[in-house]
Parts: sequence; structure tokens; C-alpha cells
Amino acid sequence: MTSDELSELKAQVAALTRQLQVLEDINAIKDLQHTYGYYMDKGLYSEVVDLFAEDGVLSFMGGLYQGRESVRRLYEGRLRQVFTKGKNHPIYGMLVDHLQLQDVIHVAADRQTAKGRFRALLQGGVHKTMPDPPSRLPRQWWEAGVYENEYCREGGVWKIKFLNYNLQWQATFEDGWANADIISVNSPTTYPEDPLGPDVLHGQPPKLWPETYCVPFHYPHPVTGRSVKI
Amino acid sequence: MTSDELSELKAQVAALTRQLQVLEDINAIKDLQHTYGYYMDKGLYSEVVDLFAEDGVLSFMGGLYQGRESVRRLYEGRLRQVFTKGKNHPIYGMLVDHLQLQDVIHVAADRQTAKGRFRALLQGGVHKTMPDPPSRLPRQWWEAGVYENEYCREGGVWKIKFLNYNLQWQATFEDGWANADIISVNSPTTYPEDPLGPDVLHGQPPKLWPETYCVPFHYPHPVTGRSVKI
Amino acid sequence: MTSDELSELKAQVAALTRQLQVLEDINAIKDLQHTYGYYMDKGLYSEVVDLFAEDGVLSFMGGLYQGRESVRRLYEGRLRQVFTKGKNHPIYGMLVDHLQLQDVIHVAADRQTAKGRFRALLQGGVHKTMPDPPSRLPRQWWEAGVYENEYCREGGVWKIKFLNYNLQWQATFEDGWANADIISVNSPTTYPEDPLGPDVLHGQPPKLWPETYCVPFHYPHPVTGRSVKI
Repeated sequence: MTSDELSELKAQVAALTRQLQVLEDINAIKDLQHTYGYYMDKGLYSEVVDLFAEDGVLSFMGGLYQGRESVRRLYEGRLRQVFTKGKNHPIYGMLVDHLQLQDVIHVAADRQTAKGRFRALLQGGVHKTMPDPPSRLPRQWWEAGVYENEYCREGGVWKIKFLNYNLQWQATFEDGWANADIISVNSPTTYPEDPLGPDVLHGQPPKLWPETYCVPFHYPHPVTGRSVKI
Repeated sequence: MTSDELSELKAQVAALTRQLQVLEDINAIKDLQHTYGYYMDKGLYSEVVDLFAEDGVLSFMGGLYQGRESVRRLYEGRLRQVFTKGKNHPIYGMLVDHLQLQDVIHVAADRQTAKGRFRALLQGGVHKTMPDPPSRLPRQWWEAGVYENEYCREGGVWKIKFLNYNLQWQATFEDGWANADIISVNSPTTYPEDPLGPDVLHGQPPKLWPETYCVPFHYPHPVTGRSVKI
Repeated sequence: MTSDELSELKAQVAALTRQLQVLEDINAIKDLQHTYGYYMDKGLYSEVVDLFAEDGVLSFMGGLYQGRESVRRLYEGRLRQVFTKGKNHPIYGMLVDHLQLQDVIHVAADRQTAKGRFRALLQGGVHKTMPDPPSRLPRQWWEAGVYENEYCREGGVWKIKFLNYNLQWQATFEDGWANADIISVNSPTTYPEDPLGPDVLHGQPPKLWPETYCVPFHYPHPVTGRSVKI
């Protein structure tokens, strides 16, 4: 074996190793996001918070929660109060299924970060036999949203760096999206004035149905390679 | 090339080979479960049974069918009778779409077994023009369930070792999950007293909506590594 | 190191490389089809057309559009007119969400072509506040379909070679699939007699719900290896 042959073989193995790791990364990130959905189904809000990196950020309904402790305010503070009466588990008669699907994931060249587009389809509702149903929720609804998330790898473990949920539409089970009320998203009040509020606000409120906002794509057109103008 | 360099390169190639095979396993298992859904859509019950290992087990509505011939009792005996009037193909006016999504799959170190979490969203119903509609079915319904399945590899082929379907909720198209009747699952009668019954019963009946049972996770929290207490 | 050992190691690395490329192909094809869905959501019809190979073919509602310029007739001509009033972006009050899921993809031995089965679940509708709603659309509907597509790799890039959409059922939000009207698909008029028509017709019109057509599988039974007779 010549030294050249050896060098070439070594280089091939090194390249293969990296390509394989990227595929493992993609699989791990898909699992991470799918697991987010399974936890959200069942009121496992502390487990959801633990999916975030320490400096992880959440974009939710016009505000940003910056850092895992801020993220905790929303999940353990606000959502857990609204959906499971403060319990970290599902409660009788409350449905919040979070289907996660349609992944498109790209890993950065240095394998330290990644971006992923997903969508969610939700079924939410309160069963007629539930005692003391939450007052602010519709009786039963469909919801759709698009994520454009970022992930980071720390200590070999993929975590959520930026959960960027873009609610698209919400519709009651009875009346559907054709008859949905226009959701007015007032600028939320920031923390600490609102003890469960976001740290900062987006420049403008989210555009919700019947507006039809297209969440920008993190990746170019897969055939032309051009960025998609929207 | 020193003998050390050679050994190292050989070891790298062996490790890469194994990692690659695990990714191929994950893809094959995903395809297997997705195919299960496509077959269930279309009344291909014999094909469904053939997805199981010979000692494969099915958990369905409070009972266990142990071994492929028992599994056959349910699919070819009971379900084929209810949904396709005994035919092994779809029939006019009967819808039973089985959407399969949100996979999280882990392959055991020896690559002989694997576990996978999936969810199903079903659309079932009987068209108004169908002659002699089945008597025991709702007119049209939505259904959601979570699988925590096991798979095994035999002769290089992945098969279903344990199909563990956990019905979560069922709701008529008209009234939705907020108004769903509470499904009372009576302890089924076992085989052979019921010629199409399960071999054994679970210790307790499944907890269905408006209960909100969280199917235990086969895998620890992806970031903390701790098992998820539910 | 003997020359035999070297040859064996080289052969292993070559085999690994090929297997890895196939997994990368599968991931790229899944991303391609998922991206198709995201573009269809948002009226990005020109971007959809660019996902096709130059000789790409579309099967849609009983007709074939052969070649990318014919495909353009349907997306940029017909669908863009119906859904977004001729705009290449979403418009106020028009919903056409195209969920893409349940992939089963197989790459040919030469890695030049591939086949993939997917399904779609659509939510379509026109919001009550939309001015001048399209006249030919239902107010709001659910739709389900199955794809059996072909893909090709050109210049290292995967493209759609044959988009074979098989509408399965369509149901209004109000009445559901049990009460769906039977969609009568008349033989479309071909191009150029219809300036937006298909190039050729299928031998027979598609069988739609309450018929329950099973789209043939591009792949054999994953366990028995036998082709699935339907």
C-alpha cells in the first residue's frame, strides 16, 4: 500500500464519518421535536422546559421568552395554569393533542446548530363532563401552526435553541375555519410588569387567519437553490 | 502504514458500519409502521397479519393476542368482519383511514429488537349510500391513538413483535370530542370462549377519554436522560 | 498489511459510501415532498413547478400533464387562478393547507431514480370575510389523498419526475365524509382545446369516494417480499 492510498482511504473514512453524524443529528432533532409534541399532549410542562438549552428562546404569540427560566414562565406558569390547573400531568376532560409532522431539517457545517421546519395540527377541547372547565378556552377546536426552529448541540446532546411557533389558524369544531372569529392579539405586557409575560415583544403582532402569513423558509428552494421570496 | 494505523482504520470502519446499519434499521421500522397504516386503510388484513413475527403480540382494547395466529383472529376474524364484510379489500362506502405519524424509534445495541412510539389519527365512517351498513359503527368519526411498539429483526427483516395500540379518544364527526360519549370497555371474553377473543386480559381496562392516559415512554428524556414519570 | 486486507477495507469503504448515499437520498426526497406541501399551502405555484424535472409528469384528476411546461399550465394557469386569484402568494381568507406525511421511499440501485408513497390531508376553505370568494370551491372542506410518486436525480439534485396524486375523498366541514356528494369527474378536455387542460387522459376516470380505490404499492410486502395484490 502506498502512502497515497492510505491517505486517501483515511480521508474517505473521515468524510463518511461526518456525513453519518449529520444523518444521526437529523434523526435526533426529529425525535426531539416529536417528543416535544408528545409532552405537550400530556401536560408534561417541566419536561418541555428541559428540552431547551439554557439560553434557549421561545417565540409565542407576539413575544419572546429569552432563556430557559423565561421559557419556564410560559410553560410552567401560564400554560400549565390554563390547561392542567397547575398540575404537571394531564387532567380529566382536557384535550390538547399536539401532532408534529412534515420535518425539513438542515444541520450546520460545524454540527453545532441546526434549523428545522415542522408543522403542528392540534385538537383541543374540554369534555362536557369536566368539572370547573377553564374559562378562557373554546369548547373544542382545531389549530394549525408552522415552526421554524433552531437547535443546538451541547455536550453531544441536541436541544431546542429557538422554538419559533407560528400559529396559523384556530377554528372551533362546530363552525370551522370559514367561520372563525378573527383572533385579536393585543401586544402582551412584558415581564416583570406581567409576572408571566415575555421578555420582549416582536416589532409587530403575528398575522393570524384570515390573514395567510407564510413563515419564511430557513432553506433555499431544493432544486433551483434560490431563496424563496414570500 | 504501521500496524497500529491499520487497526485503527479497521476499527473506524467497523464502527461506521454499525452506526449506518442502525440508521437503516430506523428507516426500515418507520416504513414498516407506515405500511401498517396503508394496509389498514384498505382492508388488507392478511397483509397486516404478515407484518407480525410468528410470536408477535397485539394489545387491543384491553386484551392481548399472543402469537401471529391469535393476531389473525382479530384482524381476519373480527375487524375484517366489522369493516369489510369479510373481504380482504376495501368495500364501497366504508372509510377507515389510518394516518401514521410522529415516529420516535430506538434500536437495541444488538440490533435484534427496537422500540418505536407513533401516533395515529383515524377518519372512519360509512357513506350514506352504502347498502347494509355495519350496525355497530358510528356514522362517521375521528379517532386518535398512541402506539408504543416493539419490533424484532429475523433473517435480516424487521417485523412487528408487539403492536401496542392505545386508543386515546373517539369522537363523532358531528359532535366532537367535547361531547363524546364515554366508551365503556367491558372486559372482553377470552378465547376460546369467545372464538375471536384475546388470549388474556390486561389487569385493568384501558383508560379512555375523557380520562387522559399518558402511554409510558420507552425512552428517557432526550436532554436530561432521566426517565419520564407520568 | 497484506494486499488482500487492503482490498477488503477499500471494498468495505466503497459499500459504506453507497449505503450512506442512499440514506441521504431518502432524506432529500422526504424534504422535497414535504417542501412541496409547504409551497402548496401558500400559493407558491412557480416554486412548485420548479420542483419538477424538465420532463416531469403530473397526474391530476384523470389527466396527465407531460413535461414541466405542461405542469406549469396546471399550477400557474388553473390552480393559481382558482386559489389565489392569479397571485403567486397566499391571499386573504383562502386556506389550502397541504399536510404531507407517512413517507415510504425506495431508491433504485443506480441512485438515478426513486419511488415514494406519501399521503396528504388537506384543510381548504374560504373565510366568511373574504371579498369575492372563488365561485367553484366549497365553503370549507377536508380532503385526503395518496401519492405514489417518482423522483429522479439530475446533477446531484433530486427532483419530481412523476407526481401521482390520487384524491381519495373530499368532505365539507359541515357534513363530513358520510354525507359527501359523489364527485363526478367528467373526462377533462385535453390541451390545446382546453388551453389549461392535460396533454392526455387516463384510460378511465379516477375512482373517488364512496368508491375506495387502493393506490397500487410501488414496493412489495416488507416481510413476505410478495407483491401486494389489490
